[in-house]
This record gives sequence, structure tokens and C-alpha cells, in this order.
Amino acid sequence: MKITDISNNINEWFSGAGPHCDAVISSRIRLARNLDGHKFLSRCSDSEKTEILNLLKNVTMSLQIGDNVSYVSVDEASSLDRNLLMERHLISRGHALGKGPRGVVLAHREFFAAMINEEDHLRLQVLKPGFQLNGCYEQINSIDDRIEKQIAYAFSTKYGYLTACPTNLGTGIRISVMLHLPALKMTGQIKKFLNAARAMNLAVRGLFGEGSEAAGDFYQLSNQVSLGISEMELIKQFEATLVPEIIDYERQARQKLLEDNSQSLDDKVSRALALLRNAHLISSQEALTLLSHIRLGINMREHMGAETPALKSLCGLIPRNVARSEFIQTINRLFMLTQPAHLQINHGRHLDPTKRDALRAKIIRSELGGESRQ
Amino acid sequence: MKITDISNNINEWFSGAGPHCDAVISSRIRLARNLDGHKFLSRCSDSEKTEILNLLKNVTMSLQIGDNVSYVSVDEASSLDRNLLMERHLISRGHALGKGPRGVVLAHREFFAAMINEEDHLRLQVLKPGFQLNGCYEQINSIDDRIEKQIAYAFSTKYGYLTACPTNLGTGIRISVMLHLPALKMTGQIKKFLNAARAMNLAVRGLFGEGSEAAGDFYQLSNQVSLGISEMELIKQFEATLVPEIIDYERQARQKLLEDNSQSLDDKVSRALALLRNAHLISSQEALTLLSHIRLGINMREHMGAETPALKSLCGLIPRNVARSEFIQTINRLFMLTQPAHLQINHGRHLDPTKRDALRAKIIRSELGGESRQ
Repeated sequence: MKITDISNNINEWFSGAGPHCDAVISSRIRLARNLDGHKFLSRCSDSEKTEILNLLKNVTMSLQIGDNVSYVSVDEASSLDRNLLMERHLISRGHALGKGPRGVVLAHREFFAAMINEEDHLRLQVLKPGFQLNGCYEQINSIDDRIEKQIAYAFSTKYGYLTACPTNLGTGIRISVMLHLPALKMTGQIKKFLNAARAMNLAVRGLFGEGSEAAGDFYQLSNQVSLGISEMELIKQFEATLVPEIIDYERQARQKLLEDNSQSLDDKVSRALALLRNAHLISSQEALTLLSHIRLGINMREHMGAETPALKSLCGLIPRNVARSEFIQTINRLFMLTQPAHLQINHGRHLDPTKRDALRAKIIRSELGGESRQ
Repeated sequence: MKITDISNNINEWFSGAGPHCDAVISSRIRLARNLDGHKFLSRCSDSEKTEILNLLKNVTMSLQIGDNVSYVSVDEASSLDRNLLMERHLISRGHALGKGPRGVVLAHREFFAAMINEEDHLRLQVLKPGFQLNGCYEQINSIDDRIEKQIAYAFSTKYGYLTACPTNLGTGIRISVMLHLPALKMTGQIKKFLNAARAMNLAVRGLFGEGSEAAGDFYQLSNQVSLGISEMELIKQFEATLVPEIIDYERQARQKLLEDNSQSLDDKVSRALALLRNAHLISSQEALTLLSHIRLGINMREHMGAETPALKSLCGLIPRNVARSEFIQTINRLFMLTQPAHLQINHGRHLDPTKRDALRAKIIRSELGGESRQ
């Protein structure tokens, strides 16, 4: 498949839909698996890696997950293409920068992806919009079972699934929830949340790039340990207490913003839209932050019925030729389309950072009906 | 007179007109004078101060400078009124914060003001828009002569005019030129200019407040010594070399911006207008900076015929019901109207900083035809 078939698509998990989508972007479950009777990758020759790749590629593609499953060879992809796959959360930084035969099998609209020869032989992931870890687990569990009918995984009755790194040993599961917490950020309470997460041994990352700082008020929360706790217990922790509590704090912060500081909220939302519609140079970090404020504004109007002047005009400001639901989709799509690799691939060539900033601004202006579209 | 008669007026020196008005806001000459046969103020009792005040008030008002000369008693004015006079450059911080009987005589549209009982008995100033020091000197010299016909100044044939502080001794003259140097700022060359000015023993201040940091790319340049150099020599220094050189640097920087970095210029101008028309909270510092970028945009279009997309749309964006020349006047007026004391006096009462930021944003939005005027 061509990479541009991916770059112009909307990925389902960032569609702005799903349960609790006012504060949760997406839920993701990933399983780490290795083949029985094969060495871990660090000890494999390239020909052994090719053998593993072909076997796992054939098995996962044969399952026909979704309408239109496809394969991308990561070792043959350009660095720009690999960056695009990372931006879409289809491969990890390790997979992008790794060596030797490796690839990714992915379902149409990207709710499912299988990295082959990343750190482990196989890394399965299911990604869904909003907060729905049970749904993710159900689906990935069924995929995992269907694969296991065709091949034998490396498994120990004592340790569980064997993995290249001990942090993945046991269930091999990693649960991640991508949260959108702009009100906790605006009200200065985000540090408390970050400290609490760290104290619970959870990892917090940003929206783009595994090592990235949280930008645009997006925070991905994941477990770091998969040994000594069952999949269901871990999911229950996230589903029943951890994430609902954070969602609750964020909603309270939004309510408080509305009651005590609606002028500051209006200021942020109005400025964000004004800059997005008028800037001529815009970095990916700034775009994330501004789009995040628009997303907050839309959600506060939709989910809380907030009626401040700026939130009312936010809807009034939607360009005449664009329907309201389309506008929300546009905002969501822009998060992805304005990332560096997306920009360059959709433009057809490499661009230096200043040219990217100019192109990013131009795309946003044109999508949001900016005042000066030249 | 009532202070609101001043606060709603346009002061001539900030009208955006005059020679070299693309880079020079205003020219100002101030003379420090003391009465012969009277002590310096630090040694005067209040009754002696009252005597001096009445004498100098009567003399300066009798000259009928301009159409409509008026007097404000500074010691009887509220602190808000005193701040307004400072924002309009009619009195100094020292005069505002001082003690005892004191006041200011001022001409309509404020091209002339006489502070009485500031640090010296009399401080005369003439302020004109653009770069016209000779014009200022001619006028202040004639006023000074007319006063001297009625009273005797403290004068020594050895030292010249005697003043309370030795830095004003001699001619008692201070020359100030208010420059607008946004391109030197954007291109990072402003530090070079500031260092050179300091090396020449010149003082550099901002647009508002004697001790204020330069904000909004406005820099007031003044001499610090008035002994051992004649008025004409000093004016010649400013008129013939110093200021023309800076104007030239600024114009070169604008040309360079246009040639090498017009996207960044467009970005700054578009962002400024977008924020001014849409923000709901705006500090006086930010307002200055953003208005400064609009002023740069207008001037580059008017004086250099610059035709970048943002500069073209800047004119296209002028609200339909506003004429172009009016728009420039509006921008100039907003510099003054959005200062803290102006805001509060025109609003009729004291406001805390957040309420000021909201009112400032509202006034600007409404003046510039912002998208959300609520």
C-alpha cells in the first residue's frame, strides 16, 4: 500500500467520538508476544528475523481484521514514512529507528495494528476512540486467541508470556488512555495529577512521540508493570477508579472555569481561533495547544451547554460552508494533518522547519476559513 | 478643567503625523528654570511654594499659548488623575508623586505644558509629532523669552541656568525623541542600538512611565547632560546624525524583513490584528506590542508600498464603516486609551487589573471591528 493512502485517512481513534470523549481521546491495549522456538530479536540474524517476519505477517494478515488489512515494510520505508506511522501511533519510536527486517500490519482506519520485529516478535494493539478499555480488551483478546490457534507463543507457567524486556513479562499487556485535560492545565492543577500518576507507577506521555513532553494538554497514561497482576485486574483499576476520577477532576475544573473565570476561558478560546485563522507561521507545538483550546470550547458547549460569549461565537464563527459536525471533525483531523511528517508527505516532499510552519499555517487557515487565505 | 476633557482628546504629538513619522513618534524639548530670589524647592515651605506656584501659573497662563490654555492642580488631583497626566506625558513621575503645592499649565492638544514646582520651579516642554526638534526649539525658545520678560530666572554667567540637580545645570535643556523601532527589534538588532546609545551617554526609556522598560518597540532617546554644550549644538547632534542614522537602520531592517522574511512579518501583523480583534483579556503591555505591530504594518504599506498578503489584507480588514485615515487614527488613539488610568477615568471608576484587562480588550475589539463584540 502507499503511505498517502494512510496520511489522508481519518484514524478512527482520533475521531472525537466514543464514551467520555469530552476528556478521553482514545483507549489502547497492546500485547507483547514472542514465538516459541525462536530466539529473542537481539540474538537473531537478519535471515532469522525475515523468517519470523514472514510467518507473523502471513498469520496476522490471514485473520482479515476489518475490511481492508494492509502491510507496510518498516525497514524499506523512508524516514519520513516511518515518522508518519509514528505520528499515527501505528509504530513506536523503537520500531521506526530499529534495524533489520520488520513491518506493521494494520487494519483500515487503524483500530488495529501489529508491529512485527519491534522489541518483541509481535506487538498487537487495539485503539478505540473515547474511554472503552473493555471493548479494546475484548477485541485484542479475540485476535490474540485466533493467532495462538495458528502459532505457539513463548510462554512459561511460572512467568506467563516471555518478553525481551522484563517490564513486559507476565501478561505482556500495556494499557494506555489518552486524556485531554485542558482545564486542569489552565487552573494549575495538572501537576498534582502528574505527581499522583507517578506515585502510582504509571507512565505519562504526550500525544506524539514516545518520549515527547505533553503538549496541547494531552496526557497519555499507561501502566508500567505487567507481572503479578491479571489483565482484568489492571483494566478494572483503570476502568473503575483511576480514569473516572481524573475525568471527574477535569470536569470539575471546567465547571469551575465556567463559574469563576469564564472570561479567561473565553479569552483562551477566542485567541486560539483567531490565531489559527490568521497566523502565517505556526509550529506543531503551538498548533496542538491552540487546537486543544478549540476542542475544549466545543466540548464545553456540547457537553455542558456552556453559553459564554466566546463559546457562542465559536459556533457562530464556523465558516458558512461547513456543517457543525464537520467543523469538529476538521479540528480533530488538523491535529494529525499538521504533524511534521503528515505535512511533508501530503505536500509530496521534504520541507525545512520554517516552510513547514508556513504550510501548517496555510492549511489551518484554509480549513478554518481564515480571514487571509493567501 | 475636568480631567475627562483631557482623557478623551487626541494629543497632537501622538497623532502619527509629522516628518519621518514612520519611525519617529514625537520630538520633545524641555527646559528647566528657577526663579531668581527664591530658594530651590527642597528648601521651600509650603507657603513659599504657593507663592512660586501662583506667580508662575499667572505668568504662563497669561501667554495664551494655543487656543485654550488650562491649569490642573496636581496636589489636589486624585492619584488616578495624576496617572492620566503621566500617561499623556504632561507631568513626570516625580511631579505626580511629589508633595506640596504644584500644578501643570497645558495647551489644548498638549503641544505645550509647564510643570510648576516639580524638581525645579518651572519645567517647560514642547512636544510635536514626528521628527522636528528645530520646530520644538523655536517654539519653546520663544515661550521661554516671553516668560523671561515678566520674571527673572536664576542664572549665573559661569554656569548658566541654575537648577536643583546638577545634571540640568547650564542650558537646562533636555531633548527627547520617541522612536518606533519594531523592525530592529524583530531582527534582533535592537541591542546594538541600545548599547551604542548608552555609550553616547544617552538615556533610553519606554513610551510610558519615566522608569518603564521599553514596551511595544517604543524607545525614547534623551540627552543626560546640559552643561558645556549649547542648545543648538545638542539639537544638531540629534537632528543631523544621531536620529537620522537610527531611522536609517530601522528602515533598512524593514526593507530586509520584506525581502528576506516577509512571512515572519506577515505572521506578526496578522497575529496582532487577530488578537486585538478577538482577545477577551489583554494587558497594557501586550496591547502596546500588538498595536506596535499594526502600526509597523500600516507604515510599511504607506511609506514603502509593501504588498505582502498580510499587509494587503490589513487594509482589506479595516471595518467597512471606518475610513482608512480614521483607522490609523484609531490605532494611534488606542495606544493612549488602553493605558490603565485612561481606561479607568473614561470608565468612571477604579477597576482591578483583571477588570481593566477585560475592559481594554472590549474597547479594542469594538474599535477594530472584532468578530465577537459581546
